[in-house]
Amino acid sequence: MTGNLADDFTLSVAEKLLTDDEHVHKQLSIHDAAQMTFNEPNLVILQRTTALPSAPLFGLADNRYLQRKPEKGLITKREVRAVSLARLQLHRESIVWDIGAGSGSVGLEAATLCDRGFVYAIEKNEADVANAQQNRLRMGLHNYRITHGKAPEHLDQWPDPDAVFIGGSGGELGALIELALTRLNAEGWLVMNFVTLENLNTASTALSRLEQEQGIAWDVTQLQASRSRPILNMHRMQAENPVWIVCAQKAS
Amino acid sequence: MTGNLADDFTLSVAEKLLTDDEHVHKQLSIHDAAQMTFNEPNLVILQRTTALPSAPLFGLADNRYLQRKPEKGLITKREVRAVSLARLQLHRESIVWDIGAGSGSVGLEAATLCDRGFVYAIEKNEADVANAQQNRLRMGLHNYRITHGKAPEHLDQWPDPDAVFIGGSGGELGALIELALTRLNAEGWLVMNFVTLENLNTASTALSRLEQEQGIAWDVTQLQASRSRPILNMHRMQAENPVWIVCAQKAS
Amino acid sequence: MTGNLADDFTLSVAEKLLTDDEHVHKQLSIHDAAQMTFNEPNLVILQRTTALPSAPLFGLADNRYLQRKPEKGLITKREVRAVSLARLQLHRESIVWDIGAGSGSVGLEAATLCDRGFVYAIEKNEADVANAQQNRLRMGLHNYRITHGKAPEHLDQWPDPDAVFIGGSGGELGALIELALTRLNAEGWLVMNFVTLENLNTASTALSRLEQEQGIAWDVTQLQASRSRPILNMHRMQAENPVWIVCAQKAS
Amino acid sequence: MTGNLADDFTLSVAEKLLTDDEHVHKQLSIHDAAQMTFNEPNLVILQRTTALPSAPLFGLADNRYLQRKPEKGLITKREVRAVSLARLQLHRESIVWDIGAGSGSVGLEAATLCDRGFVYAIEKNEADVANAQQNRLRMGLHNYRITHGKAPEHLDQWPDPDAVFIGGSGGELGALIELALTRLNAEGWLVMNFVTLENLNTASTALSRLEQEQGIAWDVTQLQASRSRPILNMHRMQAENPVWIVCAQKAS
Repeated sequence: MTGNLADDFTLSVAEKLLTDDEHVHKQLSIHDAAQMTFNEPNLVILQRTTALPSAPLFGLADNRYLQRKPEKGLITKREVRAVSLARLQLHRESIVWDIGAGSGSVGLEAATLCDRGFVYAIEKNEADVANAQQNRLRMGLHNYRITHGKAPEHLDQWPDPDAVFIGGSGGELGALIELALTRLNAEGWLVMNFVTLENLNTASTALSRLEQEQGIAWDVTQLQASRSRPILNMHRMQAENPVWIVCAQKAS
Repeated sequence: MTGNLADDFTLSVAEKLLTDDEHVHKQLSIHDAAQMTFNEPNLVILQRTTALPSAPLFGLADNRYLQRKPEKGLITKREVRAVSLARLQLHRESIVWDIGAGSGSVGLEAATLCDRGFVYAIEKNEADVANAQQNRLRMGLHNYRITHGKAPEHLDQWPDPDAVFIGGSGGELGALIELALTRLNAEGWLVMNFVTLENLNTASTALSRLEQEQGIAWDVTQLQASRSRPILNMHRMQAENPVWIVCAQKAS
Repeated sequence: MTGNLADDFTLSVAEKLLTDDEHVHKQLSIHDAAQMTFNEPNLVILQRTTALPSAPLFGLADNRYLQRKPEKGLITKREVRAVSLARLQLHRESIVWDIGAGSGSVGLEAATLCDRGFVYAIEKNEADVANAQQNRLRMGLHNYRITHGKAPEHLDQWPDPDAVFIGGSGGELGALIELALTRLNAEGWLVMNFVTLENLNTASTALSRLEQEQGIAWDVTQLQASRSRPILNMHRMQAENPVWIVCAQKAS
Repeated sequence: MTGNLADDFTLSVAEKLLTDDEHVHKQLSIHDAAQMTFNEPNLVILQRTTALPSAPLFGLADNRYLQRKPEKGLITKREVRAVSLARLQLHRESIVWDIGAGSGSVGLEAATLCDRGFVYAIEKNEADVANAQQNRLRMGLHNYRITHGKAPEHLDQWPDPDAVFIGGSGGELGALIELALTRLNAEGWLVMNFVTLENLNTASTALSRLEQEQGIAWDVTQLQASRSRPILNMHRMQAENPVWIVCAQKAS
């Protein structure tokens, strides 16, 4: 069992059922059970005691995610997150990579959507990893695992993905793009978010080369959202910064 | 069975199993089976013979939807569709209304996401209704029903929704907003897309009044996407028209 | 002489030239001269002693304008200012009104462009009026006058305009639009900037009515600019809030 | 006299005034006068017979410019033109270069604004050159000259500029940027418009290098305008494609 989910469950153990030594331990806490021994054969019943949070499939408000301060605002905004998830072409069974996970929002919503799949995330900033872990717990997700590290480290231990999201880059962008497109399953999508001219530039240069060499398809969507904010008894529009969503599909 | 799904299945009927009169009819077409009579007791096995289309949970490319010509371009664009679905705060069990469904894209992706829920759609243009039906069949959806008519007609026959999408308006916008917010379950969201100043105006005026009278919350997001298009061996950005996504939440 | 321009000039007075009482007072300060009396007939020579600031015709950087703190950011941004000036269809001789002048940027650049015309400005906030005055002095403009007050006050004392700019509104928007279009010379343009849904709404409703009644033409441009900002050794794009530029032309 | 302005003037010649041979030829056409000989000394009076077109200083509607068909839409749109002119930091005396002039709109409005300066334009497409010439005549401009050719050809024959505009590039972009910044007068601005990722990329890479080597300053503004269009009795917003306005200032 990953994470601190122990508090959400009780454990009942039925020992040697239908024998004279039959004994049932009802609703033990996970911690108590961990320190006991049980006769065999036995039967274990796990019961959830806290309601699963009723989160939507995706589209949580930005402030529902724990984020690093004061760099708030670095989270993938809801609008960009929704479009990025749409472009990842997720199925319920998808294996998803989230590289440069930050607070985890994109990968965590992917995990909610892909409840029969699994999301592997990696993030180099330790405080971000801790936040993403907390966010995972709040959302009650079991099919998500975040690793502290710097891609491409660890990626060789992950299964080949159906979809890859890159939300940030610590300087290995060109190599990561090539690696992601190598590891992706056929027709799988790589989706990236950029806010700097330089990263957009690096990505489009790398993708143009891979288009010629390997026949991958790619495109760029720029997204610009503005949100209403109350002012006196009126509503003004406040702009979010524009984001480039760069998408590439592995050839089939 | 809704729609023209007969071709996707065969039917096998096992009559009077384990008796002397046991007889098994293997893999009948639905049409043939409909004209036969079977001895009782019998056991029926339904087998899907065509693979379910492998569509993603949401985010289909715009051209995957049949649309009216020459008014192409009226479909809710992928970026706006993704953000609208995000704002609808869907759960797998959600009951969703899609009013002014057009080619059906928003409601159909909602139905894919809400596989244990149901989507009720209405559209006044007959050609659009036919396209939405075809789009539904292509996507293999059983939890979606579109009605030909003009809202608020028929809405009184639908169950109360968890989420309501209004993609277009034939002049009843103010009344529809009020009706939707009355019928919505507590904390459910109404999400609307507008491209005209006048509809934005009508909606924000109505919502300001309902905010004062009923304490609903509402906001406006403007979304502006641009997509790369190849030109010579370069990529230029082509703008989609801006769309206002107006969201209102029923008070709890 | 308008304003505090005294320091920019010296005054020489030649009394009774070509007579025995001929006397020349060379390069008096304006203040000294004001306290003296001179024999007649005399000849006055005014000499500029400080160079005129070398400002461009328009397009000054936002930070070149004194602005109220902390409400910085309320100034009409350079991009919006440029497009608004373009839509005013200015000639060198134009009479321009600037209603709700704020820090004065639009009207002051109009005055620079219309060096044979005149700009009449009004602003209800006293601190803004003081800033606009200072900005005028820095730019060395003589064909600009700002009045402290709330439009439509004072407008009846101004000559009919060739172009009217409304940058803000204290609640009289509908009436101001009608007044501006009444007073404008034939084919003159009214240009307005709005950041709230409600003002956009009020303006478009008023203009639709005037279109039907008086045959005026009008249109709306939404402008969304993003500016690069250095980050590490890269450049990210920072969005300015979107602004609606509403333009109406008086029928000829 | 440049261009076909002959029809706009008449010529009167006063021969040997105040002598017995005094003779005045009144209001000759330029063509007639060209074929006559006159006694000396004489005095010539040139009279404009057609009114100068009453064009605004800048901001002409896009359709006021002759453009190549069907490539309409390639003209620098009014909003982008206004912001580009603003960033050029024009004075009435400015010497301006317009490289890749297209239909001429930016350079022609610069010439209107800089009535005591001069605009030198170059364009490689012959049909564009012809359109720009026609547009110049319609606007009655004498301080504008367009050359048919491909930059950097001919630029060595032009005086050093106070402002340089590059509206298009036939592949020499990096070299042109370096040349423009070399030739610009101190503190002069280079302003460029790009619509492709690749040109933006080439320009920002070149400017980053010149920033390090020569201390130039540069920035990027992205402009996205949408214009209202009537639909039924409402107004929808139609997006213009986004344009990157890249500006660099020569170090002082």
